[in-house]
Amino acid sequence: MFQFTTDEIDDLKNGQFLVEVEYISVDPAMRGWISDIENYSEPVPINGTMRSFGVGKIISSKHYDFKVNEYVVGWLGWQKFSVVDESKIKLKINPQKAPLSKNLGVLGLSGITAYAGFINICKPKKNDVVVVTTAAGSVGSAVGQLAKIYGCRTIGLTSSNKKAAICKSKFGYDEVINYKQTNDISSILKKIAPNGIDCFFDNVGGIQFDAVMENLNVKARIVICGTIGMPSFPIPNGPRFNRTLLIKRAKIEGLLVLDYFSEYQKIYNKLLKWYVEGKLVSEEDISDGLENAPASLIKILNGLNLGKQLVKI
Amino acid sequence: MFQFTTDEIDDLKNGQFLVEVEYISVDPAMRGWISDIENYSEPVPINGTMRSFGVGKIISSKHYDFKVNEYVVGWLGWQKFSVVDESKIKLKINPQKAPLSKNLGVLGLSGITAYAGFINICKPKKNDVVVVTTAAGSVGSAVGQLAKIYGCRTIGLTSSNKKAAICKSKFGYDEVINYKQTNDISSILKKIAPNGIDCFFDNVGGIQFDAVMENLNVKARIVICGTIGMPSFPIPNGPRFNRTLLIKRAKIEGLLVLDYFSEYQKIYNKLLKWYVEGKLVSEEDISDGLENAPASLIKILNGLNLGKQLVKI
Repeated sequence: MFQFTTDEIDDLKNGQFLVEVEYISVDPAMRGWISDIENYSEPVPINGTMRSFGVGKIISSKHYDFKVNEYVVGWLGWQKFSVVDESKIKLKINPQKAPLSKNLGVLGLSGITAYAGFINICKPKKNDVVVVTTAAGSVGSAVGQLAKIYGCRTIGLTSSNKKAAICKSKFGYDEVINYKQTNDISSILKKIAPNGIDCFFDNVGGIQFDAVMENLNVKARIVICGTIGMPSFPIPNGPRFNRTLLIKRAKIEGLLVLDYFSEYQKIYNKLLKWYVEGKLVSEEDISDGLENAPASLIKILNGLNLGKQLVKI
Repeated sequence: MFQFTTDEIDDLKNGQFLVEVEYISVDPAMRGWISDIENYSEPVPINGTMRSFGVGKIISSKHYDFKVNEYVVGWLGWQKFSVVDESKIKLKINPQKAPLSKNLGVLGLSGITAYAGFINICKPKKNDVVVVTTAAGSVGSAVGQLAKIYGCRTIGLTSSNKKAAICKSKFGYDEVINYKQTNDISSILKKIAPNGIDCFFDNVGGIQFDAVMENLNVKARIVICGTIGMPSFPIPNGPRFNRTLLIKRAKIEGLLVLDYFSEYQKIYNKLLKWYVEGKLVSEEDISDGLENAPASLIKILNGLNLGKQLVKI
């Protein structure tokens, strides 16, 4: 259960600085962070501040390299004021280059995740056929656009006609499937990708995953970035794809963006360049007020957001 | 259905040569080659010669580079005399370096498969914990020994106490599990590999696969080399491991040795060196007479062979 509390701000120690947080991020992965089921990171402790990326302005500092009025992105938590040291910060940003909020979405964890999974793991080639689930989402829409930048053909899976329309008009998908309007995603994929799917960026699992697996091309590369369409526990059953992987010599790999944090600045610079060129656009769904953060989390877990979910503080 | 037939040998055309076949290979993959279920290669045609690797001596030649009395390994088929051109041959061998039969096993497809999957895909590091299914088999036993050469800790899964004993005494496995004597492979693995499994070379699928998946270390690498423990069709159900792959940032990749045929000679040279040094030993299960080839195939599909199954002609 989330509680909204007010505390005194601690005095800064040497090396610390105080950030006034302007936007916080709300992510599907948070489902895992507040659960006691095994995950890649420790659960947020009871009575701890909710873990979250944020962007804000330094308003006080005892750190030589982090000065007042500079803007930073990092693990600021769901709070208005955040006392942090350098270890929590991913990068300084220039607020003139892009709106602050973009640094949490297409230029933030969503964009970095999309790049790490699609470029580093899928290793796309020109004319590859690429399928993306949650195609209109903050990560999915970035993957779709990266795939177009790399000369691929893109197929998006999404949950409504409204999102499908945005996938085409805004994110440049070549084909979009509203998976809620069919019982046979596999046959649709077979029709629009008769030679098979080369890259698959999956945020969902379950029947959408199965449908793509039934249509792989030889040497397909699959990134598992999320499993939002599957229960965490107990592990559900589904088709055993061992033989498919064998026959297609396909590869599946799990992606955790934290593994790519050493490349954050390098990837950010690439994304920023494409953003400035207009090749990487994004939708944002911004709630107002810290007290609305939990409701925003529930909203994205129910798929009711459109684009990167943020809270403006 | 297999038939034993006798035909005239065609006259050699330019570029062809006649090989007197001495040993032919019998492989689990042949189950797929003679089935009409989708596979990585065309099925063997009705009334065609059964596809197979073999080793033999050139007894007549119209090819400048392939001379009478030279020994070759390649796609010779299940037959006593094979008229082939260069495209069917993988390499010439020196019969002084190793017994002829070894060139179809530990120095043949089995060894090349083990090397390609374990070295190229698993990319083993010193002290990695490595699990191998069909650990006493021709591919499995080679993987187990390669893992020891690379300084790994090896755990073999096998189907009998006799095979388990050979795994330890001959192939140097650190731990062996007779999977037929337990209902809970996963708990045994947890005990002997409490920090998790780094590399998994799987020839089987099904419950052995599941047990290993439940005990992966972070950044585990899994090769799917075979699915002999699973029906081909319809695809059976089992646990959906998407979330496991995500949390562990693990990788699964399907292996087909044919994809590594351009490196055949290079890999052969490495295997031969280890063979000569006594670091790569193997068991062979040799039937006598071409007419026994189909029975030998059934034998290995039932797991009743011990080591590389061959037929001496």
